[in-house]
Amino acid sequence: MKTIQELMEHTIQDLYSAENQIIDALPDLIDRVQSDQLRQALQMHREQTQQQVQRLEQIAQQMGIDPDGETCMAMQGLVEEAQDLLSQLEEGPVADAAIIGAAQKVEHYEIAAYGTARTLAQQAGQDQIADLLQQTLEEEKQTDEKLTSIATSSVNQKAAQS
Amino acid sequence: MKTIQELMEHTIQDLYSAENQIIDALPDLIDRVQSDQLRQALQMHREQTQQQVQRLEQIAQQMGIDPDGETCMAMQGLVEEAQDLLSQLEEGPVADAAIIGAAQKVEHYEIAAYGTARTLAQQAGQDQIADLLQQTLEEEKQTDEKLTSIATSSVNQKAAQS
Repeated sequence: MKTIQELMEHTIQDLYSAENQIIDALPDLIDRVQSDQLRQALQMHREQTQQQVQRLEQIAQQMGIDPDGETCMAMQGLVEEAQDLLSQLEEGPVADAAIIGAAQKVEHYEIAAYGTARTLAQQAGQDQIADLLQQTLEEEKQTDEKLTSIATSSVNQKAAQS
Repeated sequence: MKTIQELMEHTIQDLYSAENQIIDALPDLIDRVQSDQLRQALQMHREQTQQQVQRLEQIAQQMGIDPDGETCMAMQGLVEEAQDLLSQLEEGPVADAAIIGAAQKVEHYEIAAYGTARTLAQQAGQDQIADLLQQTLEEEKQTDEKLTSIATSSVNQKAAQS
C-alpha cells in the first residue's frame, strides 16, 4: 500500500466488513432490549445499515475493487466487548443502558472511519464517492444523537431507579 | 451486574484498560510518523493520556473500586487494526494519513465511552465524578479536532501528491 487511493480502498473494504458485522450482531442485541423505543431505533438502524452496505458496494464498483477482502478487527473487538458485557446483565433498564453505550461506541467508530474516508475521497478529487460517504456519515451521526436522546429521556432514568 | 452503579464501575475499569493500552501503543506509532506537527500532537496526547489515567484512578478511589480488573477488547481490536494497517505502509505522508485515521478511531471510541460514563454518573447524582469525566471528554474531542485539522491542512495534501 503506497498511495492515498490504496489507503482509500483499504478503508472501504474495512467499512464493508464493519457494516456486515453490525448487521450480523444486531438481531441478538435487539432480542435483549426491553425499551420499545430503543428496540425500534435499533431495528430501523439495521435496515439503514443494509442501505449503507449497498452504498459501499456502489463505491467499490466505482473504484473498480471488490468490497470484500478485509476483516475489520476493531469491529470484532467492539462486538465481542458488547457481547461480553451483555452476558453479565439480565434484561432490563440497566442492560438497555449498556446496549445504548455499546451501540454508541459502534456509531463513533463509524463516524471516525467514514469521516476519514470522506476526507480522503475529497482530497483525491473523487467528489461523487465523497458525497456517498458523507450521506452515511450524516446517518451515523443522527443515529448517535437518537441513542443519546433515548438514553437521557427514558432508559437511564429507569436504570437509575432499578 | 444489576445496577447502574455496577455498570459505571465496569465502564471505569474498561476505560482504565483502554487508556493504558493507548499509552503502550503510542510510542511505536509516534516512531513511524513523518510529519513534525503530527508527531508533536501525538506526543502531547500521550502526556495528556497519562493525566487521564490519573483522573480515572481518582474516580475509582471515590467509587471505592480498583481501577484494574477489565481488559478493553474494543481497544485491543483498534490497536491491532492500526498495527496491521501500518505494517502494510512505508513511512511517509500516506502512512501519516493512516495514523491520523487510526488515532481518530481511538478518540471516537473514547468520546463514546466517556460520554456514556459521564451521563450515567450524572443520572446517578455523582456530580463530582461526572465533572472529572467531562474534563477528559472535552480533551478527547479537542484531540480529535486537532487531528482533523492536521489531516486537512497538511498531511492529506502531501499524501494525495505522493
